[in-house]
Amino acid sequence: MTNRIVHGGGITAAARLYGGRPEDWLDLSTGINPNPIALPDISVSAWHRLPDQHLVERAREVARAYYRSGDILPLPIPGTQSAIQLLPRLGSAGSVAILSPTYGEYARAFALAGMPAFKITGVDDLTSEQGLVIAVNPNNPDGRMLSVGRLRELHDRLQRRGGILVVDEAFGDMEPESSLAPYASSMPNLIIFRSFGKFFGLAGLRLGFVIAQVSLLERFEDWLGPWAVSGPALSLAASSMAGDTTTIRNRISDRRSALDAVLRRARLQVAGGTGLFALVADDRASDIYSHLCRHHILVRKFDYAPNWLRFGLAPDEVVDRRLAGALEAYSI
Amino acid sequence: MTNRIVHGGGITAAARLYGGRPEDWLDLSTGINPNPIALPDISVSAWHRLPDQHLVERAREVARAYYRSGDILPLPIPGTQSAIQLLPRLGSAGSVAILSPTYGEYARAFALAGMPAFKITGVDDLTSEQGLVIAVNPNNPDGRMLSVGRLRELHDRLQRRGGILVVDEAFGDMEPESSLAPYASSMPNLIIFRSFGKFFGLAGLRLGFVIAQVSLLERFEDWLGPWAVSGPALSLAASSMAGDTTTIRNRISDRRSALDAVLRRARLQVAGGTGLFALVADDRASDIYSHLCRHHILVRKFDYAPNWLRFGLAPDEVVDRRLAGALEAYSI
Repeated sequence: MTNRIVHGGGITAAARLYGGRPEDWLDLSTGINPNPIALPDISVSAWHRLPDQHLVERAREVARAYYRSGDILPLPIPGTQSAIQLLPRLGSAGSVAILSPTYGEYARAFALAGMPAFKITGVDDLTSEQGLVIAVNPNNPDGRMLSVGRLRELHDRLQRRGGILVVDEAFGDMEPESSLAPYASSMPNLIIFRSFGKFFGLAGLRLGFVIAQVSLLERFEDWLGPWAVSGPALSLAASSMAGDTTTIRNRISDRRSALDAVLRRARLQVAGGTGLFALVADDRASDIYSHLCRHHILVRKFDYAPNWLRFGLAPDEVVDRRLAGALEAYSI
Repeated sequence: MTNRIVHGGGITAAARLYGGRPEDWLDLSTGINPNPIALPDISVSAWHRLPDQHLVERAREVARAYYRSGDILPLPIPGTQSAIQLLPRLGSAGSVAILSPTYGEYARAFALAGMPAFKITGVDDLTSEQGLVIAVNPNNPDGRMLSVGRLRELHDRLQRRGGILVVDEAFGDMEPESSLAPYASSMPNLIIFRSFGKFFGLAGLRLGFVIAQVSLLERFEDWLGPWAVSGPALSLAASSMAGDTTTIRNRISDRRSALDAVLRRARLQVAGGTGLFALVADDRASDIYSHLCRHHILVRKFDYAPNWLRFGLAPDEVVDRRLAGALEAYSI
């Protein structure tokens, strides 16, 4: 067994350490919209039958419009994590480089497959020997953004040597203008990952999409095998991505501003983030983390950056005040 | 792209060829309980949050009791198909043998991985060079059963040379006394696959379990990565596997008898099957298949056995009569 990574969302483990019932904890350790969309009716047949072709086709059409991916019909997958697990099977014309620090499962997947990956801190550190490059954009946890132009340049450089660029846009829904999806059909060596659950607040559903040229999508499809995505997930994707996403976006945006206000009042410095979380840089991070745990509030800490804490969004003002109160108790 | 296999469940494709709206077709082409269990309430948090450890642990405990797997906590997976896709990564001390004919995705998964598998028709055809053996038990589509004693012998033979036995019990819920699960903790080189959706009538959910010793389960867990199974699936598994399964079993059994009666009246010979489907052997199979399609009834045909047709269960007597009527129109 390769060492598992401790991610956000580990309320059960935290409650075992600090007490309290898991359901009474406030989980700010993930980057998931805290206000899930209202669940539409899901037909009994979506639960009952093996997901039929028309359900898949409809989800792909709606995803194409939502992601503005032009000629490309995004491939539904059971969570972007499932595609990360498959990346080593792509092989690489050269070594693997991961723009770091970032989501830890990339390095883990390659290590597990016996393909150690180089962690590079910027595009300029790339060498001509690297044939598979992973960029999370916007980046988790610091929110670093690479422009469309910069990523296109990087793609073209890799393409000339038969390399592949993977861009993980898991936190991209709040910044659609920064997505590469509209350019994907003219970028043959590009693979984009999109996450459904973070923005729509339905991470338990396990749904994501891969956007790439057909020959690459077919490889993922073959590796995943038939019926990889559940009927309820396909059904929900089709209805919610075609629905009113502006209201969702505005609400997330308001919640993010409220989080900023709470952190500012607590004199914590926001060093980065995306629409769905804020990254705080503070030398007392470890201490603040434990303090919040004692108030049964879980945020995300980072082994590799002990002065960082990532705060997810609170669902409403009542919960803002709960966080603010806990932070105030710390300052005193 | 490796050639995809045409499975049951392709109502969309059939309706394109023979007309009618897909929702008006009668799909008897799969082996899924036609009467899905009533969906219990699924908490919003199961949809919203990344599946937390306590949800996984609860599903595993309930599955252990349901499958009677002793010390072994079955590993939830997103459908048994997902584990079939991973089998080639196990490697093999020798070549791969598949007890055939059977579910086509086994041969396909090994072919895709560049590991051609030998199709053997019985345990006696096994050679000492084969290190990974796949047995679907009861078998799909002919219902052939290998006894617990026979499978244990086979396991011990393989174990002596470092080989592995995979037993797919996807259709095993109706015959719990034939399952190897209660013996698994003393069979270190055994891997059992169980399907949740077929018996409970929720194939769209994508849920299955792997039963094996911990070191093997950890390999599947690493390959699948975190959060492989959706929150709603884990939640449903925990409630339904702990519920009243006798009523489900009796109803399936009644539906299977009703199917036999319809086939008998149509003078079709049942050559095999399991609790969830019947296999008809008839020289006119291809003709009957097309005839039923013209009545917008889909059954399963087999490229490799043109005289076979597999009939799934109808949900009730009204639908029995629809099938009986269509078959009667054929006989006339």
